Amino acid sequence: MSGIITVTAPVNIAVIKYWGKRDEDLILPLNDSVSATLDTNVMCAKTSVCARPDINENEIWLNKLKEPFNNKRLQNCLGEIKGIARAQKSVDEEFLSWNVRIYSENNFPTAAGLASSAAGYACLVTALAKLYKVKTDISALARLGSGSACRSVYGGFVRWHAGVKPDGSDSVATQIVNSLHWPEMRVLVLVVADTKKHTSSSKGMQCSVATSELLKYRVQNSVPKRVNDICKAIKDKNFATFAEITMKDSNQFHAVCLDTYPPCVYMRDVSHKIVEVMHKYNEICGQTKVAYTFDAGPNACLYLLEKDVPEVIALIKKVFPTTKQDFVKGLPESLEGFPEIPDFDFLNLFPIQPFNKDLLKYLIYTKVGDGPQEIADGSHLLNVNGNPIN
Amino acid sequence: MSGIITVTAPVNIAVIKYWGKRDEDLILPLNDSVSATLDTNVMCAKTSVCARPDINENEIWLNKLKEPFNNKRLQNCLGEIKGIARAQKSVDEEFLSWNVRIYSENNFPTAAGLASSAAGYACLVTALAKLYKVKTDISALARLGSGSACRSVYGGFVRWHAGVKPDGSDSVATQIVNSLHWPEMRVLVLVVADTKKHTSSSKGMQCSVATSELLKYRVQNSVPKRVNDICKAIKDKNFATFAEITMKDSNQFHAVCLDTYPPCVYMRDVSHKIVEVMHKYNEICGQTKVAYTFDAGPNACLYLLEKDVPEVIALIKKVFPTTKQDFVKGLPESLEGFPEIPDFDFLNLFPIQPFNKDLLKYLIYTKVGDGPQEIADGSHLLNVNGNPIN
Repeated sequence: MSGIITVTAPVNIAVIKYWGKRDEDLILPLNDSVSATLDTNVMCAKTSVCARPDINENEIWLNKLKEPFNNKRLQNCLGEIKGIARAQKSVDEEFLSWNVRIYSENNFPTAAGLASSAAGYACLVTALAKLYKVKTDISALARLGSGSACRSVYGGFVRWHAGVKPDGSDSVATQIVNSLHWPEMRVLVLVVADTKKHTSSSKGMQCSVATSELLKYRVQNSVPKRVNDICKAIKDKNFATFAEITMKDSNQFHAVCLDTYPPCVYMRDVSHKIVEVMHKYNEICGQTKVAYTFDAGPNACLYLLEKDVPEVIALIKKVFPTTKQDFVKGLPESLEGFPEIPDFDFLNLFPIQPFNKDLLKYLIYTKVGDGPQEIADGSHLLNVNGNPIN
Repeated sequence: MSGIITVTAPVNIAVIKYWGKRDEDLILPLNDSVSATLDTNVMCAKTSVCARPDINENEIWLNKLKEPFNNKRLQNCLGEIKGIARAQKSVDEEFLSWNVRIYSENNFPTAAGLASSAAGYACLVTALAKLYKVKTDISALARLGSGSACRSVYGGFVRWHAGVKPDGSDSVATQIVNSLHWPEMRVLVLVVADTKKHTSSSKGMQCSVATSELLKYRVQNSVPKRVNDICKAIKDKNFATFAEITMKDSNQFHAVCLDTYPPCVYMRDVSHKIVEVMHKYNEICGQTKVAYTFDAGPNACLYLLEKDVPEVIALIKKVFPTTKQDFVKGLPESLEGFPEIPDFDFLNLFPIQPFNKDLLKYLIYTKVGDGPQEIADGSHLLNVNGNPIN
């Protein structure tokens, strides 16, 4: 027993967006949000933790770089877990007095703006909760690190309840359905070529809460109905309804960002081109086959069913021509075993001409997956002495 | 007496936006809007009209091209004016039986998306009202041609009242202050290099009314307060308040467009860059010296005071470098007679690096001006025989 705990945790992509806090310290949101958890085999955070008597101070490495430990959110997470452990007497006082080492990395570029902090904090608190053997709602712990991280502690489709209590005890995530419920659901992440620094979502939402009149309406009127409707659509596996709500909520979230003063602008010309192409595609198909959603950055996430993946990837390659050999990453894009023969003829008639080359950097093909998992094969990121293996 | 009437009419730029109709046929808006009328010496529509017994059918030329006359809005305008003339007996029945010739042109590119239809219809109805000698509210006539045209029938700052009556008789424009009230006010129109076709504002607003939840809130809550506040700011010549409301209302209008399904996107990356630069400039100045506003297209209109024009034009040339010799059009950009020596040193420290060359096509420097004017010098666009002179 090395005493090292290693966990992987997934990214999640919201279909009903979290934007705006009712409590900055406890990270309590103004509205419920809903997301899908993505397969950790394609994208994940991986974190190893240990506590040892021979470590002089708490230390953390993120993607191979040592970071300062005096981050308030990190301290909150560790402090909360140790407090619970003490109350539950789940480990002894001596163990609680030891310092910790944390080594965390993502298997995807952090800079891609792919909710890396959500996966990272879900991973961290899961690992620490196991280290200190606490029995508690992991989602509430993850929320203290990064709001949307609470949705990454479950697989499948997940709802983060805003809650109403001032202490935040009812602001937790619950699973709507697990990852096996809608096995045909697929996700394409379109990473755009964009180097501009955006306003952090934390600052952006603070500014929206302070200045956007439309945010109030969204929180009180639009979101509650959408959350109910999309939860039902997910349970019923009603793709058209799921997709329409997803697109409308993404659009409304970015509308609120634009209504903020000064405005927060996350989508770029290329993002809007993706939107236009997907609406045109759905229109030509005579049914809603694909939904887009954008977080606080220019990258698109597309939700679609497995049977339509070859057609949509072909469409993307046609309209957003690429010079890159390894443009499609993630799951194999093989056509074998697809229940329908995709229609590639429509591409020649598609009414939007190809844009400039390489507007997209790459495409990640993935699916809905499970929540955090402890790694049992011993492939830790810390060695038996608690030192980073890299 | 040639019997030819020739009128010039101005463009107007809204600071509280018109977006959404409560009646499509009568062109009645969901909310009040406010605009400034721009100097016809810089940008204007010019229209000549005549009625003659020897004309076989009604004919119209727009910017040298003959257009079909069976345009519903055009027919509505002519029909309404003739109806009033008949009721008022302002001309005899024989004159009313003659067909008309209309020749209209803009002295600025129609494609620039600079509210050319507003100037055009304000010009047309003013000319026809004079031709038929009717005494009536010209703004209500202009509204039948193009909603925002009703604001171009007065100079200075103008308010279009939504009205509440089903027949639209109270949906008229009134002058808030005339063009002499705030003589320091200046406008810079930044025409961006963009060839993409946008959704027409008529279609866009129909779609917003049908699908945007946020539009309802805007109309009921945001706009009424803003209209009152900006009218007061205009009367008080309070630039900072005027500017802040102008920017917030532009942002909210584009937020509503984005909340529309499918979304209407009028601003481009370059538009958002202009927004970012102007916020940064105001921040560095420690006061609000410039306001941006965007209509249903990517071009920016900046409101600012005369004393700040040299500094802001220098800033624009620095951050949006141009290769064009005649980049600044309109009023002379001479520094002579400016009350303050502009500070060009700040340009070297400006924290936003220059963007790519020629993102802007040109800049039109103009000011607040008067309403439509009949041309008395005989420079008609139709000759004595009623034929186009070109």
